[in-house]
Amino acid sequence: MKLICQGADLSEAVLKVVKACAGKTTVPVLECIKLSAKNDILSLLATDTEISIEKVIKADVLEEGELCIPGRYFSDFINKISDVEITLTTSSRGLEIQYGEALSTMQVLPADDFPVIDVSISENSFSMSQKAFRELIAKSVFCCATDDSRPILKGCLFEVGKEEVVATALDGYRMAVCRQDILSTTKEERIILPARTLSEINKMIGGEDDELRIFLQKGMMMVEVDDTIMTSRLYTGEFVNREAIMPKTFTTVVKVKRDELEESIERAAILVRSDKNSLIIFDIKENAIGISSNSDIGGVSEVIRANIEGPDLKIAMNSKYILECVKAVGEDIVEMEFNSSVAPFVVHGEEREKSSYLILPVRANS
Amino acid sequence: MKLICQGADLSEAVLKVVKACAGKTTVPVLECIKLSAKNDILSLLATDTEISIEKVIKADVLEEGELCIPGRYFSDFINKISDVEITLTTSSRGLEIQYGEALSTMQVLPADDFPVIDVSISENSFSMSQKAFRELIAKSVFCCATDDSRPILKGCLFEVGKEEVVATALDGYRMAVCRQDILSTTKEERIILPARTLSEINKMIGGEDDELRIFLQKGMMMVEVDDTIMTSRLYTGEFVNREAIMPKTFTTVVKVKRDELEESIERAAILVRSDKNSLIIFDIKENAIGISSNSDIGGVSEVIRANIEGPDLKIAMNSKYILECVKAVGEDIVEMEFNSSVAPFVVHGEEREKSSYLILPVRANS
Repeated sequence: MKLICQGADLSEAVLKVVKACAGKTTVPVLECIKLSAKNDILSLLATDTEISIEKVIKADVLEEGELCIPGRYFSDFINKISDVEITLTTSSRGLEIQYGEALSTMQVLPADDFPVIDVSISENSFSMSQKAFRELIAKSVFCCATDDSRPILKGCLFEVGKEEVVATALDGYRMAVCRQDILSTTKEERIILPARTLSEINKMIGGEDDELRIFLQKGMMMVEVDDTIMTSRLYTGEFVNREAIMPKTFTTVVKVKRDELEESIERAAILVRSDKNSLIIFDIKENAIGISSNSDIGGVSEVIRANIEGPDLKIAMNSKYILECVKAVGEDIVEMEFNSSVAPFVVHGEEREKSSYLILPVRANS
Repeated sequence: MKLICQGADLSEAVLKVVKACAGKTTVPVLECIKLSAKNDILSLLATDTEISIEKVIKADVLEEGELCIPGRYFSDFINKISDVEITLTTSSRGLEIQYGEALSTMQVLPADDFPVIDVSISENSFSMSQKAFRELIAKSVFCCATDDSRPILKGCLFEVGKEEVVATALDGYRMAVCRQDILSTTKEERIILPARTLSEINKMIGGEDDELRIFLQKGMMMVEVDDTIMTSRLYTGEFVNREAIMPKTFTTVVKVKRDELEESIERAAILVRSDKNSLIIFDIKENAIGISSNSDIGGVSEVIRANIEGPDLKIAMNSKYILECVKAVGEDIVEMEFNSSVAPFVVHGEEREKSSYLILPVRANS
């Protein structure tokens, strides 16, 4: 392989694909970026076997070839020579990197060791505006599980219908169900996308009204944004039936100003932050919510005005879960719907359809 | 104790003094802020026994008194109610914090348990512009030791003369010797200030031309900036004699553009960053410096133009130490002075007096 390219192009491409490199692993080639030079194109490809990212740049290819190079070292190094022309040449010592008057070398691994990545994923697809995708992710993915006790919960269920997509994420303590309009779909789908994949797509897009098309085929997905192609495995397995666990009727319904609720929970959370359950208590009665917490450090006791329909209720919960969900609602007014002090309750904004959160209460001893 | 104060005042004061609270400790009172209310003044004081920070604010004191309250909890909590009037009252349940319609409580410890801090430190003093102090710290403190193998090296020696102060910091591998003018001094001093103390003073000052006066008495120092008083223990013990270890004559003298040198070292450092010594080699000859590094990952080999006087020299060093010192010099041209490949060498800018760095080479096996 021998080619000449612009440092700025190479640097930008390397920074994009290196995100798919595996961290510390026992398979060194997964920490590498695969370089392929052919037809005046240099392709850069990285994968950790769950996701892959590929980007091509223009290059003056004097000799075709391919190889694998340690991803993070190469990325950091190229980033420091982004303002000059770079010549890459394979030699017996590895990859020679020539820039200005300097000549550096990096060890390489054979391209044959690199996993085969099939980017021809095109059988089905659906599309939505980048803005709608960004909002869907912001409101759902934080509820995905982060531990490995039930790996499938590290993914987010996308139910793609004719006009909208419903995203469901849960971690065993709370569940998000969010909806956004889609622009088009080739057929209805039910797929589980890894939370990490969704976050990486989020970083690739700009959030404008541009279209984002997600292609699907044989348990894989693919998106292409600005000449960068990302693929990802989909998760397979039984996902929770959201309809079955989301309650439909409620006895006590509370409407409250979001900023007041959020600030009050934040204060109550401070004094219980070292406790395992970070427990706070809502005492709902007489058109107000009493918000309290208690620990060895002290106790908070606040009252905020609220509009309440139905019987009084006292319910305990993990302050972290309720706070994240209230913040995600984002609207001026938050609605909370309860059935009893031991039944899951629901938090949503004015449009219940757009994003609803189901939260499990904690049985308080007091 | 009972008092009324403004949330904004209390919040600002708490954020300043909490920096002196100890982290996790076996002496809970050191994690506390001591509150003392007297004569329409609320004083907040924290100490980890090395440094202390005190700030007073105006308050409507209805009942005098003092107590200790968990510093970080109190700080985070007050920070969330900075826009309202706050009433603090001691009760049998601890400290009652009233704000708006809310009433929260925090556990307290008796004020008697808090260490006695003597802030009447005034016997001697010297002063310099805040800007000069800021520059002195930026150029020297990074060379202080960070481990506890020789605790005194976690401090920085200040030699206060009639017209200037000389700061010396070293960690066993490199030494900084920096000078700045002073505005006045009551007498010549030789004190060792903890690096942490210097960094905290740095955060208190603005960097303008205002005067910073450092008071000294009985092994302690004190500064006062904007109604915030900070005291610190001084270190005592034998400090290195900088004159004795700083070489005075050199055989090979190199002048080089700082940005070229810095960038080249940065690139060479990337490929050896996982190695214990992060070794890079300077090959000084023919009006150029060959900068190279080698590891399992690969090798860098660059040449930068330089003005050289004296014999050729090849010398190996830790890339982290040379890079930090070259960056600290900051000027357009860096001068490096060598005697041999095993002798310490010196790095400085155009004004050698302002800041000089002594660096130990590494014996390379190759």
